Amino acid sequence: MPESLIYPVDALKAYVASYFTALDVPEIDAHIAADVLVSADLRGINSHGVIRLYSYYGDRLLKGQINPYSPLSVLKESPATLALDGGNGLGQVVGYRAMSRCIELAEKAGLAITTVRNSNHYGIAGYYAMMALPEDMIGISLTNSQPLVAATFGLPAVLGTNPIAVAMPAGKQKPFVLDMATSIVTIGRIAVHEKSGQPIPAGWGINAQGELTRDPAEVRHGGALLPLGGPAELRGYKGYGLSLLVDLLSGVLSGAAFGTGVGHPSHRGNADVGHFFAAIKIDNFRPVDEFKANMDDYIRALKDTPKLPGQERIFVHGEKEFEKAEKYQSEGVPLLVEIVDALIEAGKAAGVPFDLKPL
Amino acid sequence: MPESLIYPVDALKAYVASYFTALDVPEIDAHIAADVLVSADLRGINSHGVIRLYSYYGDRLLKGQINPYSPLSVLKESPATLALDGGNGLGQVVGYRAMSRCIELAEKAGLAITTVRNSNHYGIAGYYAMMALPEDMIGISLTNSQPLVAATFGLPAVLGTNPIAVAMPAGKQKPFVLDMATSIVTIGRIAVHEKSGQPIPAGWGINAQGELTRDPAEVRHGGALLPLGGPAELRGYKGYGLSLLVDLLSGVLSGAAFGTGVGHPSHRGNADVGHFFAAIKIDNFRPVDEFKANMDDYIRALKDTPKLPGQERIFVHGEKEFEKAEKYQSEGVPLLVEIVDALIEAGKAAGVPFDLKPL
Repeated sequence: MPESLIYPVDALKAYVASYFTALDVPEIDAHIAADVLVSADLRGINSHGVIRLYSYYGDRLLKGQINPYSPLSVLKESPATLALDGGNGLGQVVGYRAMSRCIELAEKAGLAITTVRNSNHYGIAGYYAMMALPEDMIGISLTNSQPLVAATFGLPAVLGTNPIAVAMPAGKQKPFVLDMATSIVTIGRIAVHEKSGQPIPAGWGINAQGELTRDPAEVRHGGALLPLGGPAELRGYKGYGLSLLVDLLSGVLSGAAFGTGVGHPSHRGNADVGHFFAAIKIDNFRPVDEFKANMDDYIRALKDTPKLPGQERIFVHGEKEFEKAEKYQSEGVPLLVEIVDALIEAGKAAGVPFDLKPL
Repeated sequence: MPESLIYPVDALKAYVASYFTALDVPEIDAHIAADVLVSADLRGINSHGVIRLYSYYGDRLLKGQINPYSPLSVLKESPATLALDGGNGLGQVVGYRAMSRCIELAEKAGLAITTVRNSNHYGIAGYYAMMALPEDMIGISLTNSQPLVAATFGLPAVLGTNPIAVAMPAGKQKPFVLDMATSIVTIGRIAVHEKSGQPIPAGWGINAQGELTRDPAEVRHGGALLPLGGPAELRGYKGYGLSLLVDLLSGVLSGAAFGTGVGHPSHRGNADVGHFFAAIKIDNFRPVDEFKANMDDYIRALKDTPKLPGQERIFVHGEKEFEKAEKYQSEGVPLLVEIVDALIEAGKAAGVPFDLKPL
């Protein structure tokens, strides 16, 4: 196991918030952004957590490439629909506000959709979908991202890893929280293999010549990730279709950038990322207690299903992440030494020293 | 190439409609069901077309297992949401009416969702999604189906092939129409291999012991299909999550059967299939002409992308099907001899002889 240091969750959130306030982000917004970022580490999704504090956010704030005030403006509005401009603000703040408004609308209208243009990388898509859970709503959160994925029969990366996140409440069981990139794996997963010198499984990506490769460096430098499903014979064009769908809803419907036009979160200039949020009030379709009872029945049935030889457990989406979050919330969140190093560097660059003591 | 006979489209639709009216389906409804069924053959999706006329529909109508009057009733209603009971009617008629109501609501509310319980197999999911296109709306159509797919780490089939269909209009380009089972392939695809004696590619399905098999008979008899993505290493749990998501929205939110409770379309008793439909009015988010211009830009850019060696064309979802439909509409629709035989048998069983002359 690689070495990790363990930090108390609230102190880590407080540090991240102080970091953002030092970069002119208003106090309330800084706490929102900190909560989204640390929640990723809490749920075990470190690739979208505090490791990005400088490279995706701090650096761009320092250079004036993200507007620290996240000035959201309304483009179009109706009782169940809302089109927003994110004002090139922090993706987390824009996402949080947009989903909050979406939930408010759905409280009255029974459902609502909010689109956002002119935003930035918003961290884990699942955070915003999960905001619907306490309201007994189904939450949906989609975003586009910079090109990393090849289209079926295509050579270069033309699509983002464009995630789909959907959260649905249960009763006694944990909620269903699907939060998945529409590529087989994320580029962060490839980077982990490159760093550790491990080959990647055949199928995850192609090199610059379009050949399947097991060398992570070839995928990252001139190659591309493959969409969920992989080659055409195994229906990779479905993953390509899902990635495209997410971009059409988050990029084209919102009026944001799309396809190869979406900016990289650590490059210059406006990224013009697009998001799509939806909230569906369960009670408009059937009584919430009946719905939750069926969710519990379904989840229990899945878990009681006979297993493949050698397997002891069938998982429902989000379950592993909830277990990690509960454990880390009470015991502290483990951060790999390389993440701690990234925080120390981030702190130096912004004049907000990272001097938090590990547990 | 297997032998096909070619039939004029309108005459084929008229025959199918007369078949349904002979089984007590009202005239208007019979034409709806005929249009949905023949549209599948027109789009080249023969597995969901007229080959099912007897086994999924006629047989059950004759035995009183589908209500020919499709008596739809409203369970809950609001300006943007509608929960329906399909009255154990014909899935095509129920689906058509439910999506029509959804579009009507979305015309005023900007978006709408309609759920349906107590329905039957409704044919191709994409038909209903595409109903939104002439209204400059985005259409979504989901349905659950009988268990055929294994959960990741699970042995038996516990999930349906639960398709996702989304249609989005373009300008000069063909609309984007994603219409995909959330399994790698459908069970019909496995059956085609079994019938022709061809092994299936490794990865499509498992046998009763949970091992990957290339024998289609093993998948169909005691085995299971694998979800999109395949094994866990290639992220098959994402396909499992998508299949589950579709069932939670079409089965659980609607109050229909779900999981292993969904009836097989050619077995006895109520299938209690659930559907989920949504319509999103583009103009509520941005001007339709801007949206369509961006759709065209995106589709052209994808098609202009450098290709893998040996590939000449990158496809956008729905494109192949539109090309087939245009060709078959003018030249007649080809039906494999086995499909024609199925129609002849269907006709005999229902007393509506299939005596249509091929072109």
